[in-house]
Amino acid sequence: MATESWIPNYDTNSEFSLANIPFGIITTRDDPAPRAAIAIGSSVLDLKALTTSLDLDKLTKVFPGVDIPKLADTLAQPTLNAFAQLGRPVHRVVRKGIQDLLRKDTPFQPILGENEDLKSKALLHQRDARMHLPMAIGDYTDFYAGYHHAYAVGVMFRGPENALQPNYTHLPVGYHGRASSIVVSGTPIRRPVGQILLDPATKQPVTEPSRKLDIELELGCFIAKPNDIGEAVSVKDAEEHIFGYVLLNDWSARDIQTWEYVPLGPFNGKNFASTISPWVVLADALEPFRTNAIENKTELQGYLKEGRDDSVFDIKLEVDLTTAEGDTTTIGRTSSKHLMWSFPQMIAHHTLGGCPLRSGDLLGSGTISGPGGVGERGSLLEMNEGGKKEILLYGMDARTFLKDGDTVTLRGSCGEAGQKVGFGSCVGRIYSAAQR
Amino acid sequence: MATESWIPNYDTNSEFSLANIPFGIITTRDDPAPRAAIAIGSSVLDLKALTTSLDLDKLTKVFPGVDIPKLADTLAQPTLNAFAQLGRPVHRVVRKGIQDLLRKDTPFQPILGENEDLKSKALLHQRDARMHLPMAIGDYTDFYAGYHHAYAVGVMFRGPENALQPNYTHLPVGYHGRASSIVVSGTPIRRPVGQILLDPATKQPVTEPSRKLDIELELGCFIAKPNDIGEAVSVKDAEEHIFGYVLLNDWSARDIQTWEYVPLGPFNGKNFASTISPWVVLADALEPFRTNAIENKTELQGYLKEGRDDSVFDIKLEVDLTTAEGDTTTIGRTSSKHLMWSFPQMIAHHTLGGCPLRSGDLLGSGTISGPGGVGERGSLLEMNEGGKKEILLYGMDARTFLKDGDTVTLRGSCGEAGQKVGFGSCVGRIYSAAQR
Repeated sequence: MATESWIPNYDTNSEFSLANIPFGIITTRDDPAPRAAIAIGSSVLDLKALTTSLDLDKLTKVFPGVDIPKLADTLAQPTLNAFAQLGRPVHRVVRKGIQDLLRKDTPFQPILGENEDLKSKALLHQRDARMHLPMAIGDYTDFYAGYHHAYAVGVMFRGPENALQPNYTHLPVGYHGRASSIVVSGTPIRRPVGQILLDPATKQPVTEPSRKLDIELELGCFIAKPNDIGEAVSVKDAEEHIFGYVLLNDWSARDIQTWEYVPLGPFNGKNFASTISPWVVLADALEPFRTNAIENKTELQGYLKEGRDDSVFDIKLEVDLTTAEGDTTTIGRTSSKHLMWSFPQMIAHHTLGGCPLRSGDLLGSGTISGPGGVGERGSLLEMNEGGKKEILLYGMDARTFLKDGDTVTLRGSCGEAGQKVGFGSCVGRIYSAAQR
Repeated sequence: MATESWIPNYDTNSEFSLANIPFGIITTRDDPAPRAAIAIGSSVLDLKALTTSLDLDKLTKVFPGVDIPKLADTLAQPTLNAFAQLGRPVHRVVRKGIQDLLRKDTPFQPILGENEDLKSKALLHQRDARMHLPMAIGDYTDFYAGYHHAYAVGVMFRGPENALQPNYTHLPVGYHGRASSIVVSGTPIRRPVGQILLDPATKQPVTEPSRKLDIELELGCFIAKPNDIGEAVSVKDAEEHIFGYVLLNDWSARDIQTWEYVPLGPFNGKNFASTISPWVVLADALEPFRTNAIENKTELQGYLKEGRDDSVFDIKLEVDLTTAEGDTTTIGRTSSKHLMWSFPQMIAHHTLGGCPLRSGDLLGSGTISGPGGVGERGSLLEMNEGGKKEILLYGMDARTFLKDGDTVTLRGSCGEAGQKVGFGSCVGRIYSAAQR
């Protein structure tokens, strides 16, 4: 099948290749109403414009078997929740239809490719679209499935004896995060003020801007199909409940977290902001990149047995730190395969007692670090070995934690040229707690 | 001022007195569209019917200074979020206007009291209204401000040495709960299945229905006025961010919780369901019942200093357990004054780092127990002294934790006859994990 698109300036090396087709929410100068779009190369296809401009006949040909008025209605909404709720069988048809429209030398090419009026309405350059949060996020749950991270941080907080609790290999440990402070890539991040125990000997905390502002490199997973309260989702059915994936930077103030988190878990150390990338990569786009999760030698409870080992994805992940002066250093390189628990396992565990997951709910993987050296780690806390070592940057600079003016960019992609599937970037710049 | 209403069958002993006027969301047989109402005595006043039937002139007289079309729009919505967002100054005027309409012998009485057509449209008996969740709850945060509970449970989980962590008296400890599983009073509660470590010696968990299903008696607080991300709410301004209060039963599976909660806090042990009472008692209705919080001898950080001691409410709280056979025993009697932290302090702490609270967000106080004997406690875990003693019930029955078929009812009220302010009941009946 041709991997080329007729789209102007289509670069086969793009991470928004024909094999991707990620969904997002855009506004434009001409139309300030948020609506659905996909990314292709350096372009954006406005799906509201597409579905309102083409006649029912053509749309039925492109998206066979789909309720077209219903589809058009979901694509005109300000979030992707209603589209997600249509379910994966519909997402498959819609993604394939869009691929057919955009691929060179198919019978579908004329529908959009040779319709100058429609192209002028629906195709735009990415720089002319403003991205918004793709989903209205009802609840956000952050797991802790990155084994190497959990172990390394456990050692720092509780020593090697208690680094991993006895439950760690029996269940995907997670906690409820804060949905209201999830922001889309590009939103500036204010350094949080918090209670901090500067000197444990004094037992007297202070209230100050965090001195240990950190990142957490995570993969985020959006729920498509909801489950009713009281109804567990089996691990085998869980795949069909997944809409797609984003990059997630779960900003963390380590000094605030250390003082507050016992006994009920992280709170203000995490709830000031979490950044996600704007394009949702559909679950089907990642299927070719399956690989084995970290081996878990524990005999699992039945509800967590997947009957497959290739339950995670090998997405190359990178963390860039850009200083206020503009020097960029890639400070971390790892892969999303370094998880001990898969998202289907997280969903099966989350719903085991009957907790309802709604369309648009977000699950975080937990910080992802590799098994190797400091260059493979997904948080500064691990790179600086608990605050003890400096992370060297270009421009003769160095960090232990983030400085005001620093910008952190997460990137993730997989696949070869022509078939690349990537997330775009997940960016946040820190500004001072004092700045109003 | 007259404390009598002209409402038919008005009982001056009602907890929905003229001094209360709590807000809720109803549907009726004739009109299945959810909409706002208030409770008065054993009646309900449909506020959508009221504001759409009266002319602008009369409404302006009753609710002076309020944007009437905007008010009418918020009262016709399926949740109280938009009404809450109008802010406390508007809530004050609206509550007073409704009191004037309903009070005997005022110039306002004829507007509703002598308008038979309007009465037939807007006044109904409580049994003819179905109650719904009053708010669309974006995020739910559960605090731990019940000092006596925190201490007693801390002893059980970690021993007397570590019962309260060093942070407990410095900040209101809290964690993020699950918003999707909050249900309105009357919703049946399925016993959750979960991973449980039955025998710690074996280190091998099982997956079973919880054997230690418990309640938590809490006061819930709804947010009215939102704050922007990055903007802290000062403790002095926090009162104006409060919409009102409900009773909250934060159902807890202690065996699931014990195994899962280290190191990131409670998860499946709590997220299967939380029940709230349907009527939101506005913050102003509780003003007369202020009293001092539990004394905290720790020197507080500036952002937590309220400059007043009467920062909590003395609401009499009761817990009833009704067996499947229908025998009811009041197993707990306490007061909402047994908190070491006030809701304004919780709000100031929650937003200190910039976390946005949205209109409709729910804060739980944490379980409320008195300082006295087992009869003053807000959870079975405390009443049964960590599972060691039976709680005796009428009908020659007894419990350590809840049985299938048990119904738990929370009640709360304050004030003398004629001026009573109460919450109605917060009810949930347990059904078996095996039942489909």
